[in-house]
Amino acid sequence: MSHALTGTLGDVGEFKLIAALTATFEQSDQVLLGPGDDAAVLRTPGEQVVASLDMLVQNRHFRLDWSSATDIGHKAAAENLSDINAMGGRTTALLVGLGAPADLDVTWALDFAHGLAEEAAKVEASIIGGDVTSAEAITISITALGRCDHGVVRRSGAKPGDLVALAGRQGWADAGFAVLARGFRSPRAIVDAHRQPQPPYHAGPQAAELGATAMIDVSDGFLQDLGHVAVASGVAVDLEKARFEVPEPLQAVGAALGVDPLRFVLTGGDDYGLIATFADGTALPDGWRVVGRVLEPADGVQPGTVTVDGAAYDDSGGHQHFR
Amino acid sequence: MSHALTGTLGDVGEFKLIAALTATFEQSDQVLLGPGDDAAVLRTPGEQVVASLDMLVQNRHFRLDWSSATDIGHKAAAENLSDINAMGGRTTALLVGLGAPADLDVTWALDFAHGLAEEAAKVEASIIGGDVTSAEAITISITALGRCDHGVVRRSGAKPGDLVALAGRQGWADAGFAVLARGFRSPRAIVDAHRQPQPPYHAGPQAAELGATAMIDVSDGFLQDLGHVAVASGVAVDLEKARFEVPEPLQAVGAALGVDPLRFVLTGGDDYGLIATFADGTALPDGWRVVGRVLEPADGVQPGTVTVDGAAYDDSGGHQHFR
Repeated sequence: MSHALTGTLGDVGEFKLIAALTATFEQSDQVLLGPGDDAAVLRTPGEQVVASLDMLVQNRHFRLDWSSATDIGHKAAAENLSDINAMGGRTTALLVGLGAPADLDVTWALDFAHGLAEEAAKVEASIIGGDVTSAEAITISITALGRCDHGVVRRSGAKPGDLVALAGRQGWADAGFAVLARGFRSPRAIVDAHRQPQPPYHAGPQAAELGATAMIDVSDGFLQDLGHVAVASGVAVDLEKARFEVPEPLQAVGAALGVDPLRFVLTGGDDYGLIATFADGTALPDGWRVVGRVLEPADGVQPGTVTVDGAAYDDSGGHQHFR
Repeated sequence: MSHALTGTLGDVGEFKLIAALTATFEQSDQVLLGPGDDAAVLRTPGEQVVASLDMLVQNRHFRLDWSSATDIGHKAAAENLSDINAMGGRTTALLVGLGAPADLDVTWALDFAHGLAEEAAKVEASIIGGDVTSAEAITISITALGRCDHGVVRRSGAKPGDLVALAGRQGWADAGFAVLARGFRSPRAIVDAHRQPQPPYHAGPQAAELGATAMIDVSDGFLQDLGHVAVASGVAVDLEKARFEVPEPLQAVGAALGVDPLRFVLTGGDDYGLIATFADGTALPDGWRVVGRVLEPADGVQPGTVTVDGAAYDDSGGHQHFR
């Protein structure tokens, strides 16, 4: 992207930067008042709003040598749009905080905003406000606001006998991370999946309409996130290995790196697919894949236990901060 | 405060930290779903929500040697509650992001949460969600969501002839900063005003009900923030020095530091008082002080110009990031 504004954030200053950023953002008819005042005003049909906040920190959630500013904008937005998707809703607005060093090139901030806006446009969400501040490391905070027109799907409603199903990619971003961490830049499709995840934004509201009993998005790791559903619902889950898809690019990475590619699928995060549970017999449309079943925890088994083909998976993986 | 959880954030880990933090937070009847799922759900009477996001960064917005964790919680919440106040609204919910080093004592995080919760309780706002992540410097991001039951007051509605009025403290926090910056810890009332601002939370909805034509909160500096109203409204403003109050503690600090204490009042920020404009003749209740008047910009004068007794103030002050 080429931009009219040049120099560092320090050259440009807070107020010109904000003006340039907000000029990038189109406002939908859901926005009653956009950026530029003390607060924004958003329509909330049904007299309720679904809200989630996520933070991303340079060198913890993203690296400037692995991802472009536009990539990081896409990913930061995607992660937040996905939280509303996981409630069965659609994001209508984002608020975005950006902390950055004064010597950062303003082009970076504008490209980042461009990526945010492109990702938000996929669900017709508007960027209605935010904040910029100086900080040592680039720090991004996004709040997503949305609506659940088909009801709210929580983590806690899974019942024994329910199907466990997955929508969207799974394992791609983790394989991309593994490739990048070893200094490679290909296969391109895998690396791009790490840089710009492709959450299944249609699938959240679809699951709500289909009566999903519980749902979560896969951000930290498949088994770990499914475990959150199992704990919240007080159930156990058993997965069938054979039901998972291990697409060719994951097999290629597995072969190149000498690891079982199913590990990416079972333990990877950051693709922002959805795991949902449905009453047995629910006809699931294209895009959903049944991968297991909800069980009554057996005697002596902790609620929240997730097994694969009846046994514990050797390393359930997943990310936890501060550890 | 004493807490059941001890050690560093690294000892405790993300999930136990979140559990301990959210246990601190009481949920009002406006909260349909509180922390613990992918997103929270908040009631929004009138089918609209007012929303604002602010970030605070250690050593830029606060210092650990000047303010306690509880102080920082109060201030971070206050700054955000104030944004909704400045729209004529009341905050009903906060979402809070906390980035912090793994070696931070968990007591700091819990005391911070306690300060947040105490400040939010002043307006009956609930803390409905958020995020924690590791970061080099303590970084706080807060989103405030609220309702404007008497209509939304923007920055842009001031009209020539309107009164300019101020509610709440002004200059106290800046004087407190000046004292702390010189290594002093007293006068206590002034230092405390920097640590825990006391925004006039009743005054925002009150101003909306009185038909305020424009409003802003004083966060960066009085003349600078009033300038934003003047620019947005396309007007000029003239203030009368004699109408400002310079309370005794500010006079004492001015005398001790050899500066004109009126400077704290005219250029200071961080007290989160409100500046509002009202149609001439509006009867203002206690707590509001008329300090000037909105003018048609004179020939050759830029809209947005703010004068004091008819002349430019020698240094309008105010804070701008990256500069």
